[in-house]
Amino acid sequence: MQSVKIGILGLGTVGSGTVSVLKRNAREIIRRAGRDIEISVAADKDLQSPKNCDLSGIKLTDDAFSVVNDPDIQIVVELIGGTGVAKELVSKAIENGKHVVTANKALIAMHGNELFALAQEKGVTIAFEAAVAGGIPIIKAMREGLAGNRIEWLAGIINGTGNFILTEMRDKGRDFADVLAEAQALGYAEADPTFDVEGIDAAHKLTIMASIAFGIPLQFYSAYTEGISKIAQEDVQYAAELGYRIKHLGIAKKTDRGVELRVHPTLIPHRRLIANVNGVMNAVVVKGDAVGPTLYYGAGAGSEATASAVVADIVDVVRALTTDPENRVPHLAFQPDALKDTPILPIAEVVTSYYLRIHSEDKPGVLANITRILSEQGINIESILQKQPEEHEGLIPIIMLTQPVLEKNMDEAIAQIEALGTVTAPVMRIRMETLG
Amino acid sequence: MQSVKIGILGLGTVGSGTVSVLKRNAREIIRRAGRDIEISVAADKDLQSPKNCDLSGIKLTDDAFSVVNDPDIQIVVELIGGTGVAKELVSKAIENGKHVVTANKALIAMHGNELFALAQEKGVTIAFEAAVAGGIPIIKAMREGLAGNRIEWLAGIINGTGNFILTEMRDKGRDFADVLAEAQALGYAEADPTFDVEGIDAAHKLTIMASIAFGIPLQFYSAYTEGISKIAQEDVQYAAELGYRIKHLGIAKKTDRGVELRVHPTLIPHRRLIANVNGVMNAVVVKGDAVGPTLYYGAGAGSEATASAVVADIVDVVRALTTDPENRVPHLAFQPDALKDTPILPIAEVVTSYYLRIHSEDKPGVLANITRILSEQGINIESILQKQPEEHEGLIPIIMLTQPVLEKNMDEAIAQIEALGTVTAPVMRIRMETLG
Repeated sequence: MQSVKIGILGLGTVGSGTVSVLKRNAREIIRRAGRDIEISVAADKDLQSPKNCDLSGIKLTDDAFSVVNDPDIQIVVELIGGTGVAKELVSKAIENGKHVVTANKALIAMHGNELFALAQEKGVTIAFEAAVAGGIPIIKAMREGLAGNRIEWLAGIINGTGNFILTEMRDKGRDFADVLAEAQALGYAEADPTFDVEGIDAAHKLTIMASIAFGIPLQFYSAYTEGISKIAQEDVQYAAELGYRIKHLGIAKKTDRGVELRVHPTLIPHRRLIANVNGVMNAVVVKGDAVGPTLYYGAGAGSEATASAVVADIVDVVRALTTDPENRVPHLAFQPDALKDTPILPIAEVVTSYYLRIHSEDKPGVLANITRILSEQGINIESILQKQPEEHEGLIPIIMLTQPVLEKNMDEAIAQIEALGTVTAPVMRIRMETLG
Repeated sequence: MQSVKIGILGLGTVGSGTVSVLKRNAREIIRRAGRDIEISVAADKDLQSPKNCDLSGIKLTDDAFSVVNDPDIQIVVELIGGTGVAKELVSKAIENGKHVVTANKALIAMHGNELFALAQEKGVTIAFEAAVAGGIPIIKAMREGLAGNRIEWLAGIINGTGNFILTEMRDKGRDFADVLAEAQALGYAEADPTFDVEGIDAAHKLTIMASIAFGIPLQFYSAYTEGISKIAQEDVQYAAELGYRIKHLGIAKKTDRGVELRVHPTLIPHRRLIANVNGVMNAVVVKGDAVGPTLYYGAGAGSEATASAVVADIVDVVRALTTDPENRVPHLAFQPDALKDTPILPIAEVVTSYYLRIHSEDKPGVLANITRILSEQGINIESILQKQPEEHEGLIPIIMLTQPVLEKNMDEAIAQIEALGTVTAPVMRIRMETLG
């Protein structure tokens, strides 16, 4: 058979990893795909600086548009990132009838709906396994491997930097700021760590997974996003004493009232497998009605781990070249005309259990006031951990786990507790999930 | 589009689960597949006894051959099991140009090579996700999701009964025979537990995974198989003291000298994620050269969990109906003419580290004799745990961890140690893997 000609846009971390994997494993890949995959051309805006891969035999250009307009190219591999020029290039490639493979989570989460519609119109496919959880084949698992299930919920550790920070805080008793500085020095976190630690990166990935799980359009702007920067060392320790670990999770859940779509720190029982996913590793739990809980674990970032997903997508697209376009795996798992516009629940309408940490003066009646406020909001307390006053400030930390409650009731209760004269600092709240 | 007509053979545990899932999730499945999947007919040899599913609207027969000969049926779903009539039925279905979905691990592991050749000749596909690790989409993950990788090794907990027994032994300090009896009472283990606890069931699944990982023909009879019935409570405890857990693993590894294919109890570091997979759950770690280690976890057996994989395969096959047969995903991941006949290493040629437990009389020179024998066989000791003499027998248990050694050298060393007058019982050896 003829070889398939691809063009790679972007020779950064993932782009150079993709070139390396395609070249090193060329024989293994042709044994699987049955066809030779040829990197005809690669584009990078800065061809002067050294690249982390062997570019011999590949035509190089600094004009990415020349690649998407090249009539010989069948598959465009977009590894530039962002939603600017990458979006223009992907749109142009599709308009030119080319299939696209991309690792661009922001692009898919924010503009996927229109790009998929355009691809559908042009009879081409956009593959984006590498956009979620790096090398873990989570898109394929959910979209195809669990096709017989009604997916009830999913929960994932989908940002390696955040998980590295929380793991270090627990294992070594370090503080958030200290570990973040190290993560930046190690190159895990960006100089501006907002995307990682405030959960925006995770929200991109969660948005994509939720659409595939439930058959709903991509709705990035409806995702609730909360980071880990407020987690204190004492919270990590109290959680451990109570049998829990704190993980930064992306959670999507189908309820009778709508879809929950939320990224936030979460207490989970320490015996759960996902509670034992440490360091920069990622993992996603998917609960199907037939299969029960399944978990997928691996490297969520990195040059060759992400390239692994890019190359798998390229092989899939090579197979799709001779498939009936009407009978391919749909982009969002469900046929485009079968997507349901189920509303995303505002966070105030979400029901979860809570961990609360309240710093209070050590005065009579404090606990009675707090429990009265909670009770008035219909909030039941599951357990209380009351610590000895801290020497240096004379404050008692009161730790409570609650039963499930509507978030807006908890908001009201916390406002009232913080208004108590004896409560001297903002109440720390962390949502809890059993993931059972 | 027209509906796709399937025939189900066998209405036992998996068959009735498949009917239930297809019916309950019919709307969800059609939203994904784009076509209605209609169970036209189901065959069971005993139609009198009650079935665990709603059979309304399905034609029933006790003649399975009438189904594989039915010209209306496009996909035959074989859920009878075993290698007798199931093999005849699958062969006949293929000869009649029908696609096959099966959950039959023994059939694929023992007769897959010839069945795949026949299917290839007839232009049909055999899907067998449900044959390995129940509802976990591990075949799809390895065959497609990791298509860019050279897979270096894989290791799996792929028998739920065995993992349940080992989990109970560790968590509750119980003995093997005691937990096995409970597993049988709970219906996890068969009345004849040989397939589960002696590793035959795991070897079937491992054989299939190894072929897909490395692109080698199925070679079930070359797999080394060792069960867990000799694991004593004290071994579980010593392993824990040393920072390990004992798991019954199926391991396939590519080495310069051949492929290792082995099922046996294994000490693994307790921090590894797979060491924390408990109860009847299954998990497989796959190490690819690009992606690094990935892990897939879920229910490895059970009616609807296995049905989840069967239905996913049916949806895949529905898509394959309009695919170029030359461009489908190959049965064993690699193109049939690209399979390599890499030899399977005899177990005597395998290199691993070992845990050794030696019961010896408490006499001077015992340890010197043992270490001399090991040293003569080129075996280095990593650590020694010497326990106080047991009160009731006056014997010392000596626990050793060794560095990696060729199995046949260890065989020789153990024979010599057992010949020492002071060593009063067979030496217990358990292989170790770091899975790093």
